[in-house]
Amino acid sequence: MAISVVGHANPDTDSVTSAIALATLLNAQGQEATACMQIAAADLNPESTTVLNRFGLAAPEMLSDAAGKEIALVDFSDIAQGPANLDSADVVAVVDHHKIGDITTNNPILFRAEPVGCTGTVLNKMFKEAGVAIPKDVAGGMLAAILSDTVNFKSPTCTEDDKAAVADLKAVAGVEDTEELFMEMLKAKSAVDGVPAKDLLFRDYKDFDMKGNKVGVGQLELATLDQVADIREALIGAMEEVKADGRHTVLLMLTDVVKEGTDLVVLSDDPALIEKAFDTKLDGKSMWIPGMMSRKKQTVPNLQTAFGC
Amino acid sequence: MAISVVGHANPDTDSVTSAIALATLLNAQGQEATACMQIAAADLNPESTTVLNRFGLAAPEMLSDAAGKEIALVDFSDIAQGPANLDSADVVAVVDHHKIGDITTNNPILFRAEPVGCTGTVLNKMFKEAGVAIPKDVAGGMLAAILSDTVNFKSPTCTEDDKAAVADLKAVAGVEDTEELFMEMLKAKSAVDGVPAKDLLFRDYKDFDMKGNKVGVGQLELATLDQVADIREALIGAMEEVKADGRHTVLLMLTDVVKEGTDLVVLSDDPALIEKAFDTKLDGKSMWIPGMMSRKKQTVPNLQTAFGC
Repeated sequence: MAISVVGHANPDTDSVTSAIALATLLNAQGQEATACMQIAAADLNPESTTVLNRFGLAAPEMLSDAAGKEIALVDFSDIAQGPANLDSADVVAVVDHHKIGDITTNNPILFRAEPVGCTGTVLNKMFKEAGVAIPKDVAGGMLAAILSDTVNFKSPTCTEDDKAAVADLKAVAGVEDTEELFMEMLKAKSAVDGVPAKDLLFRDYKDFDMKGNKVGVGQLELATLDQVADIREALIGAMEEVKADGRHTVLLMLTDVVKEGTDLVVLSDDPALIEKAFDTKLDGKSMWIPGMMSRKKQTVPNLQTAFGC
Repeated sequence: MAISVVGHANPDTDSVTSAIALATLLNAQGQEATACMQIAAADLNPESTTVLNRFGLAAPEMLSDAAGKEIALVDFSDIAQGPANLDSADVVAVVDHHKIGDITTNNPILFRAEPVGCTGTVLNKMFKEAGVAIPKDVAGGMLAAILSDTVNFKSPTCTEDDKAAVADLKAVAGVEDTEELFMEMLKAKSAVDGVPAKDLLFRDYKDFDMKGNKVGVGQLELATLDQVADIREALIGAMEEVKADGRHTVLLMLTDVVKEGTDLVVLSDDPALIEKAFDTKLDGKSMWIPGMMSRKKQTVPNLQTAFGC
């Protein structure tokens, strides 16, 4: 049986290109493996579509049900972020750079997570250690993922390992100017014109369980907050709809990549708890948090502390 | 704060020497770290004591409570096999070769598990990748751990990676004859004369949760089953005592390392389930299972399937 390599729900560029990269590595090592994702190609976010087009990579196959399959996880290890029936599937490998989730297995497997900025950085090491050359198109995708996840090295999640991987991968991919690649992705990802508010909220959105409370956190990376000024109320409307579906809190991080800070929009059953989490007072429905760039490294740990996880 | 590197409860040689090895690697990388174990040095099993003495290694410090500490786990990732209050400690790294357990974290960490025969094999790779030379005494401990865990390469858990690591480590440790080292360990570990039955049962013993049922599995590796002929009833008595403490099943694997098979002693609320698990009929309180050498790769997966985990 071929291994289905799949990233988390609402895939970002790392999740998509890491599925391609790990499937490529497994194939090179003689294992049948197919890159997958939990959505159809038409539903990929604009940044990921731009990256796949630029490097001539095919979109991963859609996989929505893991029942009876051999599954490799990339870029996550939380059951809730996987395809349906993941808990009854045979998980054969995990490669990630997030906190350790609740996946368990009945047998020993490869589980490789490192505290670096991007799963692509871990995969670059794995190719090197295995002595397998990375194909040019795959290297391009991995390069783009690292620039995206580390916000062009500006995110606090960025490590020396990520910078070293970029140096490796740009040579293999034949990309001379990574600034130009990053700006092309940022332009694609931050385009909001004509996109429904709910689609924007779900562009990069994850649900978390915080001591029994369901908490959703979306993030929009923007070149400037002006881009969303006219649709702010529509975004809040979309958040209200999502919150009404059994959530304690829904947050939307409007992250200004140039100013390096986040306008955090808050809908919560307990706004004081959120104020405490970020040590900042709400101004209406939102708070400006200088330096906040990373959901994973900044927003979620602060929430977990506040919720007592 | 120094990181406490600790292996599982009832430590075996891999658990002890891997704590020493990872602490050494972390120190070499500029992180304060101390090798620990969950017992006092006097309670180490005879094989581990022999290995530490032979290579001139100090026994790890005793650590029984993880509260408020930074902890690195070696050779396990199940909370139940850790020190007290592990679930409230700050787990900063995991290196293992078992099935993926239920440890989760709030932050990204290094989690490196591989489906190989020994944690020492994974650590050997990590030293190489980091470009850190392994001290001679530490290499000796890692070498002994791989020979022990793979039963001198005979266990089905043994991989090419383990053999490659042994080739690396015997050179660093200055051990010419690994057969001789293995027999020295086997002689130490299988000595039963004058040892109380309960101590023998607990020499290498682990509890597992099987769908809400507590199941204990001990293993004694022997040069011949004759070694335990006279103390068989005493061992069953010790098992009965342990089973009476809320366990559904207690198994003792009497593994004949030379004949390559296990005499499995069974005390269970549901003996038919255990017969089904191993597709073998009980002969009195035990069954002979040819080829069974590994609790992790053979006994536990078969039990999990039978219990419907």
